[in-house]
Amino acid sequence: MAEHPKLARLLLLADLGGTFLFAIEGAMAAAKGGLDVLCLAVLAFATALGGGIIRDVLINAAPPAAIRDWRYPATAFAGAACVFFLHGEIEQFPQDALTALDAAGLSLFAVAGAGKALAFGINPLIAVLMGTITGVGGGTVRDVLLAQIPTVLRADIYATAAAAGALVVVIGAALRLNPTVAAILGGLVCFALRMAAFTLHWNLPKLMAP
Amino acid sequence: MAEHPKLARLLLLADLGGTFLFAIEGAMAAAKGGLDVLCLAVLAFATALGGGIIRDVLINAAPPAAIRDWRYPATAFAGAACVFFLHGEIEQFPQDALTALDAAGLSLFAVAGAGKALAFGINPLIAVLMGTITGVGGGTVRDVLLAQIPTVLRADIYATAAAAGALVVVIGAALRLNPTVAAILGGLVCFALRMAAFTLHWNLPKLMAP
Amino acid sequence: MAEHPKLARLLLLADLGGTFLFAIEGAMAAAKGGLDVLCLAVLAFATALGGGIIRDVLINAAPPAAIRDWRYPATAFAGAACVFFLHGEIEQFPQDALTALDAAGLSLFAVAGAGKALAFGINPLIAVLMGTITGVGGGTVRDVLLAQIPTVLRADIYATAAAAGALVVVIGAALRLNPTVAAILGGLVCFALRMAAFTLHWNLPKLMAP
Repeated sequence: MAEHPKLARLLLLADLGGTFLFAIEGAMAAAKGGLDVLCLAVLAFATALGGGIIRDVLINAAPPAAIRDWRYPATAFAGAACVFFLHGEIEQFPQDALTALDAAGLSLFAVAGAGKALAFGINPLIAVLMGTITGVGGGTVRDVLLAQIPTVLRADIYATAAAAGALVVVIGAALRLNPTVAAILGGLVCFALRMAAFTLHWNLPKLMAP
Repeated sequence: MAEHPKLARLLLLADLGGTFLFAIEGAMAAAKGGLDVLCLAVLAFATALGGGIIRDVLINAAPPAAIRDWRYPATAFAGAACVFFLHGEIEQFPQDALTALDAAGLSLFAVAGAGKALAFGINPLIAVLMGTITGVGGGTVRDVLLAQIPTVLRADIYATAAAAGALVVVIGAALRLNPTVAAILGGLVCFALRMAAFTLHWNLPKLMAP
Repeated sequence: MAEHPKLARLLLLADLGGTFLFAIEGAMAAAKGGLDVLCLAVLAFATALGGGIIRDVLINAAPPAAIRDWRYPATAFAGAACVFFLHGEIEQFPQDALTALDAAGLSLFAVAGAGKALAFGINPLIAVLMGTITGVGGGTVRDVLLAQIPTVLRADIYATAAAAGALVVVIGAALRLNPTVAAILGGLVCFALRMAAFTLHWNLPKLMAP
């Protein structure tokens, strides 16, 4: 589908990178909840592969890459295994480092999602939405499974950061920028926006007092 | 797909009308919860487009109209913007008016969902189910995201009303009625049933005391 | 898709059997919650058809069998009707019997899901995942609708049992065993593992104290 093999490889790398980081995060959520090994794997898979599966179903890339390509589940499993064997170490990471890992996964998925949607000939504005959904989808599935209100509705600049990164990719494609450059730029924008919002406690305006 | 351009236009209008009304409702739910602007957009999109996306994935109308056609996200966005700028006014609507808006959206979606399923050659009885899912799907996604038990399980005559409206469309198609007439009839049946149940506190029989 | 008509019939029987058992279980959950008749039908459908629909969407068997084939909704409805008319009797079943019914549904779905994924040419390891998702998907949709943490995350050996049953089917196919024999073996392994875990209170290791 993606005509350029180089672009396809770039999208795959970003997707697998996000898969690995989100698998670690999903598995950590299970470990923190005192859940057992299997739950750890379930949450790692749901967090890592949920966003991409929703995107692929929506853009009609069927069956989803996470199902068609064994490297996706293998990467998610590797992330889960890392948490299983190293959770003591990962746990002692400061909260900032965990947020940075999550922001990196979000950035990779936002860029990969927008790029893949464009490669499937999806309308540019909707490609931005697809990038956002790829970024926030997995965490949302995880939070729904844990019967919690999802991060996307709690963290102020989260979906916004993913949308900004996806927008850069789409604008880059419209301006015929080198896709690799556009993807790196988009990822940096998303990551910087998310970390700045987290560090500086940026908030979007609310309509009413809670 | 829909062979008759007139029928296709009618389905599109009903779908977009429901999208607008449900976007307002989803955004109001976010505003009431004290959520920020982005959450308002997320909930408006999920409520407005969730039902139609689930229907389109199930009947294999891929990619879903909400993804393929920019008018769907634009309509959802317009509904969210209305709430953003006019939420003070909308909030002062009496509860009856809000329920009527919701019932109107439910009716439009039930009719559009059943009609689209028939246009895709789906079995008539399953077309009724598709109309019902289109009507209740978006609100269910919204409630799941808010970690609440969905309206479809709480309100007594809600899915029932959507199913009744969808059934009228399907029976109308079987009797070769004019599709416009059948759609209007179906919408009226759904709306009347929902409002009557709300006003008169109709309940379906329960199996056991709660 | 399934080249052998006999295999196709076997998969259909296992799928419909699981549908019936899970419809009973979903309807019982609604009845226990004091929900009305319509909710009973909604939960029966979601529990019975959710896993298979997710599997069919993921393996691109579109539209899903539950939508294309009237026998699926009819079977789910039959299960819901059983609970409606016989809930007094079903309620007096001991907990062991209800767990055995659930384990039987899980086994049928795990076997049917893995077999169908193989018939659609899905990678064997992912076919195991598809069998597991078919088994646990419906109950997970039900629990999400009820805003509860799903059984798959609470019961220790649940998804594990489904995965084991699906694995037997996939290994059987790799060894060119008779598919009927492999399916029966896989079902027995899943059922035995689930019941043994329930009876003997087996637990998977946890990473941390809750």
